[in-house]
Amino acid sequence: MKLWLTTIIAATSFAISGSATANQLELNNDLAYKLVESLTVEVGPRLAGSEADARAVAWAEQKFNQLGFDKVWTEPFTMQYWERGNASLRVEAPFNQALVLTALGGSIGTPFDGISSQVVMFDNLQQLQQADPANVKDKIVFINQALRKDIRGSFYGQVVGARAQGAVEAAKLGAKAIIIRSVGTSNNRFAHTGIMRYSEDVPRIPAAAISVPDAQQLSKMLAIHPETSLSLNMKNNLPGEVTSHNVIAEITGSKRPKEIVLISAHIDSWDEGTGALDDGAGVGLVMATAALLKQHKPERTIRVVLFGNEEGGLIGARAYAARHAAELKNHVFASESDFGAGRIWRFDTGFGEQALAFGSDLQQQLKYLGIEAGTNTASGGPDVSVLKAMGVPVASLQQDGTDYFDFHHTPNDTLDKIDPAALQQNLQAWLIMTRIIANSNVDLRK
Amino acid sequence: MKLWLTTIIAATSFAISGSATANQLELNNDLAYKLVESLTVEVGPRLAGSEADARAVAWAEQKFNQLGFDKVWTEPFTMQYWERGNASLRVEAPFNQALVLTALGGSIGTPFDGISSQVVMFDNLQQLQQADPANVKDKIVFINQALRKDIRGSFYGQVVGARAQGAVEAAKLGAKAIIIRSVGTSNNRFAHTGIMRYSEDVPRIPAAAISVPDAQQLSKMLAIHPETSLSLNMKNNLPGEVTSHNVIAEITGSKRPKEIVLISAHIDSWDEGTGALDDGAGVGLVMATAALLKQHKPERTIRVVLFGNEEGGLIGARAYAARHAAELKNHVFASESDFGAGRIWRFDTGFGEQALAFGSDLQQQLKYLGIEAGTNTASGGPDVSVLKAMGVPVASLQQDGTDYFDFHHTPNDTLDKIDPAALQQNLQAWLIMTRIIANSNVDLRK
Repeated sequence: MKLWLTTIIAATSFAISGSATANQLELNNDLAYKLVESLTVEVGPRLAGSEADARAVAWAEQKFNQLGFDKVWTEPFTMQYWERGNASLRVEAPFNQALVLTALGGSIGTPFDGISSQVVMFDNLQQLQQADPANVKDKIVFINQALRKDIRGSFYGQVVGARAQGAVEAAKLGAKAIIIRSVGTSNNRFAHTGIMRYSEDVPRIPAAAISVPDAQQLSKMLAIHPETSLSLNMKNNLPGEVTSHNVIAEITGSKRPKEIVLISAHIDSWDEGTGALDDGAGVGLVMATAALLKQHKPERTIRVVLFGNEEGGLIGARAYAARHAAELKNHVFASESDFGAGRIWRFDTGFGEQALAFGSDLQQQLKYLGIEAGTNTASGGPDVSVLKAMGVPVASLQQDGTDYFDFHHTPNDTLDKIDPAALQQNLQAWLIMTRIIANSNVDLRK
Repeated sequence: MKLWLTTIIAATSFAISGSATANQLELNNDLAYKLVESLTVEVGPRLAGSEADARAVAWAEQKFNQLGFDKVWTEPFTMQYWERGNASLRVEAPFNQALVLTALGGSIGTPFDGISSQVVMFDNLQQLQQADPANVKDKIVFINQALRKDIRGSFYGQVVGARAQGAVEAAKLGAKAIIIRSVGTSNNRFAHTGIMRYSEDVPRIPAAAISVPDAQQLSKMLAIHPETSLSLNMKNNLPGEVTSHNVIAEITGSKRPKEIVLISAHIDSWDEGTGALDDGAGVGLVMATAALLKQHKPERTIRVVLFGNEEGGLIGARAYAARHAAELKNHVFASESDFGAGRIWRFDTGFGEQALAFGSDLQQQLKYLGIEAGTNTASGGPDVSVLKAMGVPVASLQQDGTDYFDFHHTPNDTLDKIDPAALQQNLQAWLIMTRIIANSNVDLRK
């Protein structure tokens, strides 16, 4: 730990030595990268509710204190814990071979000896919903829908329904289990996990994802031998309720300390990668942004929130919103970084009409970083969308997500996938946006 | 199977309908791709000596017969069987997390409860060999040597020694186990397997590889906390001697049937990928080459050999050489395709001086495919190098191997990694080379 601390202090000292302008804040400062490196190397994967999640929370508290934040605290919330066990999937005769799979988050396991059954393929969730139950009953459902790439990740919402709702729809028709083609854009042989849901009135069946090459392989087998059967075995644990934490830290405002500018990321990650892109990069960015702005004595309070259990369904964000409901009127702004570490290319707002000119001026300050003007329909980020729904003004520094779903929710989400130069561009944008908003007195609220 | 057979017949009929010239043989024929697709989908991974290896041998015999070869047979050989079991590697406190590893082929397992020990890192095998035994005794050795990319895979030979000999060198100094950085060029989080060796006079210790990102992760941990310890558990099986097979098929020569032009690949693969690049592509190419040349009534006999257990150390090739020792004087030429499916860029020979002009003419026939003239130091390919050592003339159609070690010996070696256009260029070159040699009467021997 000692080495890390020395590095941070050196980086911070360097930062302070420059006389930063709004347009060239901390140009050579690598604090964001150092933070995500420390989190991914020293903590690693940090599944919400796990022992590693608790270490991540302790890591964040320690770093906030080392970085000189004025207040640092944690807020507990309860959550249902889910833990991955061993999993295997084999094609049975005549093409006997193993396929690469991962349990979806929240899925039950199979019976001890697994499930062996014929597989039935659908192109998408809608096709499954319209299927004849006679073709699905007692089978393993396979949804083979590809995800297309684009800068905004626009197609994710169209495809992820199979992951979230597939088990319920398949179980309604009597299926024994469901496997989906990974909601991912890479042909590397990694399966993508992610949260799935059950419904109270439908039997729970096991749900898993297979990698893109394995989905192609299985569909080729089915073209040759439509009666292909699979043998699935998963041993997940759902031990019940546990406590996790949001981690919060503030740089107190020098003039209007009660007005809160909230910048955020999520501290939890899925359990197979080290969560560098999702969401270590965001953690590093917002911690570094506030830490580096301290020297500039922001007028409003900058509050950094590292939400817990985003992956399980914004559980920490909902707990935050409930606990701070009365205080939300003092939240003058909120934003989250949670779409990897690609360069920021667009600035979207969710402001009142009276603040659009301010938003436009702010975008002009970001323009030299290659950041375009966007829309006024920003969500602010997954966790922050909960606050937006309760009236908090938001903005989104939109990252280039073209390659995000190559790595997202796979074992391959590791530090080496972050381009330090792109992260540095992100940090510049976060510094500029946060500083300008923290020093303004414009009411952004709709 | 029926669908496949129809496809092959259709492809072959198409081929026969054209009047092929030496330079434009079967330009649109996808037989090589169809064969590697069938092998990888219908058989999949085929570790030498396994049940899947036996299915691969049966697959090859059936395909050779369907393709109309004049003779088809198998030749048994015995081999030591090795089988992968479950494996796990964890970093212990303070950075507790799992690393991605794979057992090296031939490695023993750990004791049932695994091995927990401090790790000691070396930059390469030479540095380990020079280490003070006091720094190695009772530790887990970690060799962290990177593999560089180039078109020829030139650096593989420099790095693979750590995989092959590392366990012996580490055990000499009293290490409990060895892990190496994967001998691979991708930062995807796959560990690369491959054969390793023990020595009779040195204790056997477990040997595994970790992925490139995991090697980077571990070295960062060691920089912070040099006393980092690991917990390794592997359950491999070494049940003893089993029988596997070389598969052989011939198109009988129309004028000089006793003169054998041998073209080859290996039928076995590692157990984690489907062996599309290593060596399904080679299997498809040489089977298709001979099948498509049948219509041209080659003057010499074209013998296709699909060697067994190349991965275990050219075991099938050595068995072939021993069994056919008396007949090798009739082997007028041998070559193997076993370096993936990249475009062929160079033609190397291993001919006698009197045949160099012939080799040069042959290269001129390949030039329109972008194939340069090479050296006269060709090995002919891994298996064929055994025949070269016994005097058989060889040549190598050198493939672009720039990306080969991104996939080689990993779970990610799957059909989608083959570019059909590049495979088609390979097929053209193999057709031209094989046809010209089969119709020549030049003595290629040194």
